[in-house]
Amino acid sequence: MTGLRVWAADGVPEVVPGDDLAALLVAALRADPDPGRRLVDGDVVVVTSKVVSKAEGRVVAADDREQAITDETVRVVATREHPGGVTRIVENRLGLVMAAAGVDASNTPEGTVLLLPVDPDASARGLRRALQEAFGVRLGVLLTDTAGRPWRQGVADLAIGAAGVQVLEDMRGQVDTHGRPLTMTVAAVADEIASAAELVKGKATGRPVAVVRGVGHLVTEEDGLGARVLVRTGPDDMFRLGSAEAYAEGWKDALAAGGAPGPAGPDGRAAP
Amino acid sequence: MTGLRVWAADGVPEVVPGDDLAALLVAALRADPDPGRRLVDGDVVVVTSKVVSKAEGRVVAADDREQAITDETVRVVATREHPGGVTRIVENRLGLVMAAAGVDASNTPEGTVLLLPVDPDASARGLRRALQEAFGVRLGVLLTDTAGRPWRQGVADLAIGAAGVQVLEDMRGQVDTHGRPLTMTVAAVADEIASAAELVKGKATGRPVAVVRGVGHLVTEEDGLGARVLVRTGPDDMFRLGSAEAYAEGWKDALAAGGAPGPAGPDGRAAP
Repeated sequence: MTGLRVWAADGVPEVVPGDDLAALLVAALRADPDPGRRLVDGDVVVVTSKVVSKAEGRVVAADDREQAITDETVRVVATREHPGGVTRIVENRLGLVMAAAGVDASNTPEGTVLLLPVDPDASARGLRRALQEAFGVRLGVLLTDTAGRPWRQGVADLAIGAAGVQVLEDMRGQVDTHGRPLTMTVAAVADEIASAAELVKGKATGRPVAVVRGVGHLVTEEDGLGARVLVRTGPDDMFRLGSAEAYAEGWKDALAAGGAPGPAGPDGRAAP
Repeated sequence: MTGLRVWAADGVPEVVPGDDLAALLVAALRADPDPGRRLVDGDVVVVTSKVVSKAEGRVVAADDREQAITDETVRVVATREHPGGVTRIVENRLGLVMAAAGVDASNTPEGTVLLLPVDPDASARGLRRALQEAFGVRLGVLLTDTAGRPWRQGVADLAIGAAGVQVLEDMRGQVDTHGRPLTMTVAAVADEIASAAELVKGKATGRPVAVVRGVGHLVTEEDGLGARVLVRTGPDDMFRLGSAEAYAEGWKDALAAGGAPGPAGPDGRAAP
């Protein structure tokens, strides 16, 4: 086991709508003076989705931010009032549950906000094609965004787009050190790679691309299913609503049911 | 920016209660034949909490598993029936919200389950002291465990114990590439380091310790507040209950309130 190496590329300029992002990334990656950092088979290129959004022109006026969040929203999960307004935690059209639907006001020109890419998996595939052609090696590509997590302080990066990377590593067929089958162990390796990359990219530093070397066993010939499969919604989602929202819904439904003894609720659970 | 290097140490034997874990880790780290892997100032040693639990004798008979989960539980967040029984997602005495309270049946001797360490931050401090003394350099230590996440498929590693590592990196005083202050940006860097380390440790491979080099700016002289500060519970927790559980609670309370028009619920929200 040779371990991981993770580094960020310097020299990606400010990206504006219409830019050929792949060309900018190729130039930045090529300009690295360290010969040990020439891309090789199995490297994963991790790109902050923000620059993809910029290149794709996913910029709207800040005045339209609330409407943009509404437009990106499939379902409101929870809302929270704070002195500056109301934060909406929603499931967006990509299946991602995020504050403000992933609409972002940092690292964008004054007076604008950024939407997530239209189809991050497709964007990842496009970048992969261009990067593989430029470098002549097999690469994986991940697009990342930053999100809060229930029950944990602080934000962490996730993979929201993927091409050529096995995003989940299923170890259920393997055995542990005692020879017993590992169960319930599917690792979200794409999210872990995204987190590792964030440690070198940072948020304030203008380094939107990192390379992760050492996870070549997760890099596939095909583009694969993308990061969409990392989304868990529907019947498996035990947290489809914030506690306060679910509580209020139960209260309302109890009144509407005229005092029936218990819920047969929207989660499909039988009355207790 | 020199980037990250992350590698796992081979040669940690099966750990049993009473073992001097620090001595085992020191021996494994010293045995690495690569001179580039001698520990240096600023390295973070990431240890799977499972081996800490074993060394500390946190082993109970598998027959007592359900009782062990109950004993570790402070508060039930959600339950889910499945063919093999009921999974309880709970807040445990460490403030961690985890399935089965973090009680784990894999990688333990047949017929036993493992509890989390009594005080992972204290265990991290003890390991840090011993490792720093052995290697004569300033190190950080993280203890990790694996957890599922709402809305995401697959598990990822988290930091549940820390010594000498700044677990949250607060970038709110910094400016973005447009010169505007970054807001709402506190990165859970200890969780991101834990995730990076998991990529080289793996679950089935018997490599419970990894080294992360390149995050020395997060390694502090003092042991610091530990990983406990990564826990977000209480008023900030919008997901203190599963949706079904909160819904049922709302229903029940509506009945008890005899038809009042709306909840002034346990989340402290006013009636809508």
